[in-house]
Amino acid sequence: MSKGDKTRQRIVSEAAALFNKRGFAGSSMADLMQATGLEKGGIYRHFSSKEEVASEAFDYAWQAATDARMHELDSVPNSVDRLKGFITNFVKRRSPVPGGCPLLNTAIEADDGNPVMRERARTALRQWQSLLSGITAGGIRKGEIQKGVSAKKLAMLIISSLEGALMISRLERRDEALRAAQAHLIDYLEAEVRWRKSQPSRS
Amino acid sequence: MSKGDKTRQRIVSEAAALFNKRGFAGSSMADLMQATGLEKGGIYRHFSSKEEVASEAFDYAWQAATDARMHELDSVPNSVDRLKGFITNFVKRRSPVPGGCPLLNTAIEADDGNPVMRERARTALRQWQSLLSGITAGGIRKGEIQKGVSAKKLAMLIISSLEGALMISRLERRDEALRAAQAHLIDYLEAEVRWRKSQPSRS
Repeated sequence: MSKGDKTRQRIVSEAAALFNKRGFAGSSMADLMQATGLEKGGIYRHFSSKEEVASEAFDYAWQAATDARMHELDSVPNSVDRLKGFITNFVKRRSPVPGGCPLLNTAIEADDGNPVMRERARTALRQWQSLLSGITAGGIRKGEIQKGVSAKKLAMLIISSLEGALMISRLERRDEALRAAQAHLIDYLEAEVRWRKSQPSRS
Repeated sequence: MSKGDKTRQRIVSEAAALFNKRGFAGSSMADLMQATGLEKGGIYRHFSSKEEVASEAFDYAWQAATDARMHELDSVPNSVDRLKGFITNFVKRRSPVPGGCPLLNTAIEADDGNPVMRERARTALRQWQSLLSGITAGGIRKGEIQKGVSAKKLAMLIISSLEGALMISRLERRDEALRAAQAHLIDYLEAEVRWRKSQPSRS
C-alpha cells in the first residue's frame, strides 16, 4: 500500500468515528482536520468534499458493525441458531467504530436531509435485511424453520427491535432494553420460528 | 396572551419543525431566522441561546407527539385495548410537528453529544415508559393482564419495536415495517399479556 493509500485509509477510519458519534452536520472540516492531524489541503488531496469523506466513512463503519454482528456465525450450522447468534452478537459485541449503529445514526439524520447519505443508509438497511432473510429462507429450505414464516417480516422484526432497543440503551447508558429485546426475540424464534413436529397454535 | 408571548410561542413551534427535521447541529440561527421571519435580535429577546430554543422546541414537539399517540385512549376501558390503541395511534397518526419522533431524533443526535438535549430526551423516554407501565400495572390490578407480565419490560418492548420500525419506515418512505411491528405487538399482547382463564404455556 502506498503512503497516499495509507493516508486515505487513515482519514476514512478517523472520519468514521467522528461522523458516527457527532453526525454529518455535527462534524466540521475543522473537526476532521483535528481528528486526522492533517491540513485541509491534505484531506482535499484525497476527497472532493466532506460528503465524499462521510460516504466512505459510513461504508467503513457499516462494514465494521456487520463484521462484529456476524462474528463466528459461519460455523453455526442451524439457521435458527444463526439468527440467535446474530442477535446475541448485536447485544454483546461492540464495533471498533464508536458511536452506536451507523445505520441508525445516518438514517435518523438523513431521513429528511442529505440524499447521498440517505441512499447510503438505505443500501445498508437492504443489505442487512437480505442477510437475515437469506438465513431464514435457507432454514425453510432445510426444514429448520416453519414454512409459514415470512423471511422478510422476520428480518424487519429483528432489525426494528434491536435498533429501537439500542436507541434506549445508548440514551440510558445501560443495556437493559437491549437485553429485553434479545430475550423477547429469542423466545419468539424458539416458539414461532423454529421447526417442530407439533407447532403450538396461538389461535 | 400578550404579543410577546405569541411571538415566543411562534418561535417555539417553528423551531420544533426545524429541529425535528434537521437536528440540533443541522439547524443554524440563520435557518431559525428564516423559519420565523425574525431578526436575530427578535429571537434573542425571548431566548438566551440556540440550545434554549431547541430545548423548548423539543418539549413542544414531544407533547404534540404524545397527544397524537394518546388520541381518544381515555375512553378505552380495558388496559390491553388501550395498549393496542396506543400502538395503532403510533402507526397511523402523525404529529403536527413534521420530521418523525422527537425522542428518537434527539436521542440519536445527543447520545454522544449535547448533554442538555440528551437529558431532555431521557426525561421524555422515562415519561413514555411510565405512561405505558402505568397502563399495564393498572391492568394487572384489574385482572385484565396476566400477573407475571413485567410492566417495565413490556413498555421497553413496545417502545423499542415502534421506534426501530419508525426508523426503517421513514428511511424507506413506506410504512411496511411499522405495520409489521404493530401486527407483532398486537399478537403478543393477545397471546402473552391479556388475562385468560387458561394461559397457553410456551415451555
